[in-house]
Amino acid sequence: MAITIAIDAMGGDHGLTVTVPASIDALNSFSDIHIVLVGQESLIQAELAKHQYDSSRITVQHADQVVEMDDLPSKALRNKRQSSMRIALNLVKDDEAQACVSAGNTGALMAVAKFVLKTIPGIDRPAICTSMPTMKGHVHVLDLGANVGCTGENLMQFALMGSVLTKAVDDNPHPRVGLLNIGEEEIKGHQRIKDAHKLLNGTSINYIGYVEGDDIYKGDTDVVACDGFDGNIALKASEGVAKMISFYLKEAFTKNLFTKFVALMAYPVLKSFKSKVDPRKYNGASLLGLRKIVIKSHGGADQFSFFNAISEARLEVIKNVPDLISAEVSVLLQKQSEENESKETA
Amino acid sequence: MAITIAIDAMGGDHGLTVTVPASIDALNSFSDIHIVLVGQESLIQAELAKHQYDSSRITVQHADQVVEMDDLPSKALRNKRQSSMRIALNLVKDDEAQACVSAGNTGALMAVAKFVLKTIPGIDRPAICTSMPTMKGHVHVLDLGANVGCTGENLMQFALMGSVLTKAVDDNPHPRVGLLNIGEEEIKGHQRIKDAHKLLNGTSINYIGYVEGDDIYKGDTDVVACDGFDGNIALKASEGVAKMISFYLKEAFTKNLFTKFVALMAYPVLKSFKSKVDPRKYNGASLLGLRKIVIKSHGGADQFSFFNAISEARLEVIKNVPDLISAEVSVLLQKQSEENESKETA
Repeated sequence: MAITIAIDAMGGDHGLTVTVPASIDALNSFSDIHIVLVGQESLIQAELAKHQYDSSRITVQHADQVVEMDDLPSKALRNKRQSSMRIALNLVKDDEAQACVSAGNTGALMAVAKFVLKTIPGIDRPAICTSMPTMKGHVHVLDLGANVGCTGENLMQFALMGSVLTKAVDDNPHPRVGLLNIGEEEIKGHQRIKDAHKLLNGTSINYIGYVEGDDIYKGDTDVVACDGFDGNIALKASEGVAKMISFYLKEAFTKNLFTKFVALMAYPVLKSFKSKVDPRKYNGASLLGLRKIVIKSHGGADQFSFFNAISEARLEVIKNVPDLISAEVSVLLQKQSEENESKETA
Repeated sequence: MAITIAIDAMGGDHGLTVTVPASIDALNSFSDIHIVLVGQESLIQAELAKHQYDSSRITVQHADQVVEMDDLPSKALRNKRQSSMRIALNLVKDDEAQACVSAGNTGALMAVAKFVLKTIPGIDRPAICTSMPTMKGHVHVLDLGANVGCTGENLMQFALMGSVLTKAVDDNPHPRVGLLNIGEEEIKGHQRIKDAHKLLNGTSINYIGYVEGDDIYKGDTDVVACDGFDGNIALKASEGVAKMISFYLKEAFTKNLFTKFVALMAYPVLKSFKSKVDPRKYNGASLLGLRKIVIKSHGGADQFSFFNAISEARLEVIKNVPDLISAEVSVLLQKQSEENESKETA
């Protein structure tokens, strides 16, 4: 059976000029998918007309409205019921698609997805989870900004969801899960982190304790769980440093004729280096904790980036991530209720 | 009059092998300083004997104890009254030195410095402030980990102290001050940040509003104020990314004979690039809000790094940073009390 992926074709800084060709790339790479492009039908058709593709594998679904990048979540929820984002999510809700991919406004996507698709029973707050490069491979980090002011219980759930995702998509049977903190000592950090630390020690999650900001990139942790504020600060600061470094690298190699000649010589080396840390390879954040699969692409994604977000959606469908999370949460809730009962009996 | 700088010679991962030669470098670079090396006298003398230096400009002050990198602040405070760290701080308290530099345990240094030197009246919590490279120069960020769970008032004080420091050491009359948050909209972030935002809008500080993690490195902000937890996460994540990038850059240039040849060609280019983002240039964090000058060097500092921490100490003595902060805080407190009075009268 084909995997149907609903694409919010209007989302992101570049809209159709990115989402449409990236969708065609995905069709060409994966023979098992079908794409539904959701958005202004005439504009989508005009963009499609520029490309060669198998028309039997693409459906266009018209949507009158577009959620703008600066729309408040509340506005997107109440006043944009005919938006490409909302209709793409509705397709997933109605089982006409198995996943939705959007490069639109993050806050709006989370709010609308939560409203339309609902959270998995036992999960209080869905989290945004992305993978990031490390010195030894990659790491999943969540939450990246959906939830500010989490409880220990929330953080524990993020750890669980990240662990399940990593098990599934990386075929990693025992992901090492860390909690982001500012020291490895038990006394450091916010109360919520200490609470989560205690909770995690009582689960079957392969919890390795506190990790610090620099540990994210060392490759000794597979999942880093954190409050959305902390995750967002870590992610954005990392992006900032990486951009600054690449700025100075470029500056050094374009200074004069000699350095430009060196750059030409070094081109294959710099290219192989760049491929290791290329953020476009890691595009496609999962909205974990929803009953269905929603992938958030970076707003500024180019064709290659957005293609990777679609690949992530396909992989999560194949691995059936929401059901795996749901199953693990059930086990945990069952265990917690048994513990509570035995406490009451004691 | 000579500036006397007390060096905790035993502190840091490399101890005397770094602190002593870096101190001699500082004497050679700055004709206006005198150095007091505090620590195990025989060991210091043995290290000094390896170098050429003007013995009239170095004093050795014996200290029996050493604060270890994993000592709890409470232990350093109560059980290590004869430590090199404590005695160096005592010299500053007793006006025998104008500044102290230590590469020792950060938590211990902050606790002991606060106890020995006291905070400036009106400042609730001293903060750790470092400068970091940006695409256009550098930025001062504080707090970096001394204070977790700040109030809006604390953050406002950090902004004020960072602004005063930047005015003084960068000769920048109107430093642009931002508050670290996860979005530029007024509704985002923790309550403490919203509180600080309101407070800052009522001061004479050149407050430019919320900034995000990546803004730290863009060069459009001169001071970034934040809770110690958030600052630490940003700093450590940044360090982690920078190390990962440098790891992959090295890997790409050392892969085979061809890439090694290219590296040889590219050496001057890579060197000029590296000098732009060299963290050693930025070593020397200020413990702002104390009545005297204390500079924290990175524990792993090498000779060049530690030299830069000493330079920072000298500059802050010349600019008289604690007195400038004290004066600005007085103005602010005066203004607040006048406002309160006028509210009561109204």
